Amino acid sequence: MEFPEEGLWFIGRISRKLMARNMFLGAAESCTGGLASVLCTNVPGSSLWFRGGIVTYADALKTSLLNVSPDLLERHGAVSGPVVEAMAAGILQATGATAGLAISGVAGPDGGTPEKPVGAVWIATAVCLPFAPGRETKGPILASVLHHFTGYREDIRIKAALAALKALDEAL
Amino acid sequence: MEFPEEGLWFIGRISRKLMARNMFLGAAESCTGGLASVLCTNVPGSSLWFRGGIVTYADALKTSLLNVSPDLLERHGAVSGPVVEAMAAGILQATGATAGLAISGVAGPDGGTPEKPVGAVWIATAVCLPFAPGRETKGPILASVLHHFTGYREDIRIKAALAALKALDEAL
Repeated sequence: MEFPEEGLWFIGRISRKLMARNMFLGAAESCTGGLASVLCTNVPGSSLWFRGGIVTYADALKTSLLNVSPDLLERHGAVSGPVVEAMAAGILQATGATAGLAISGVAGPDGGTPEKPVGAVWIATAVCLPFAPGRETKGPILASVLHHFTGYREDIRIKAALAALKALDEAL
Repeated sequence: MEFPEEGLWFIGRISRKLMARNMFLGAAESCTGGLASVLCTNVPGSSLWFRGGIVTYADALKTSLLNVSPDLLERHGAVSGPVVEAMAAGILQATGATAGLAISGVAGPDGGTPEKPVGAVWIATAVCLPFAPGRETKGPILASVLHHFTGYREDIRIKAALAALKALDEAL
């Protein structure tokens, strides 16, 4: 597996934005197995803006470590917008970060269904912007998008990690 | 970065041993930033034996997520045998796994000291063997080793992740 240069480019932008605002990142990952965390921490000095990551490969850990409600998992499934947003919110709580990303999808080759085929990956971001105009609650701003990636398991995982970094860059 | 074939070889052995004993793996990582988790989950079907991982890049997370006592961190430092063994024990608790690995080191290029130079990496394993002869306590069997790896940050991280997989293979 080769890490793409594109990832470094996003991480450069993300790290500058986070440090300028004294923010910290946490990453919650399922199908990517920690790839976004690895990409972030591959950069020297990442401890200045990266707090940590949680790989919830078993669904029960999404509940115990990221506080995703079992009811949400039951109703929508692990690969869904509501669950991936809850994971993104959960990683902020778990790590004390003020920016978060979450990834949950079907990397394959098995596990695909007509509704959630191999390559379907939900990506969410959570950002605590202290002075966001017009916002009254103190919770993070959550956003999620469903992607459909092609290729082998490894390709899908790399594409998903990159898409999460891109989404975070846009959200910051 | 390229993932070495050697990693796949160890993971093949580890996964067969775990599945034969109905055991599950959890990974606690610091300097490797999730690389061991990524290597494990790169293999299709890894959800059958891999529960999850925690990347405690910030030291405070070693305490809050892996239950490493602040006193231990204070006395020995994050890169030490006692702390990396506590991380390995902590990941079992946190994920419900029965086998664990933990990695804590100085990946560089900065952060090295004469006592703990760049490339110094502690690796620990924790294994719950239900019927280990001559054992009376129910806690996991812990072991830790200090390595000194050479090369750039990326090389050190890859070597550390591989050494952790090798140590786990031996411990199982």
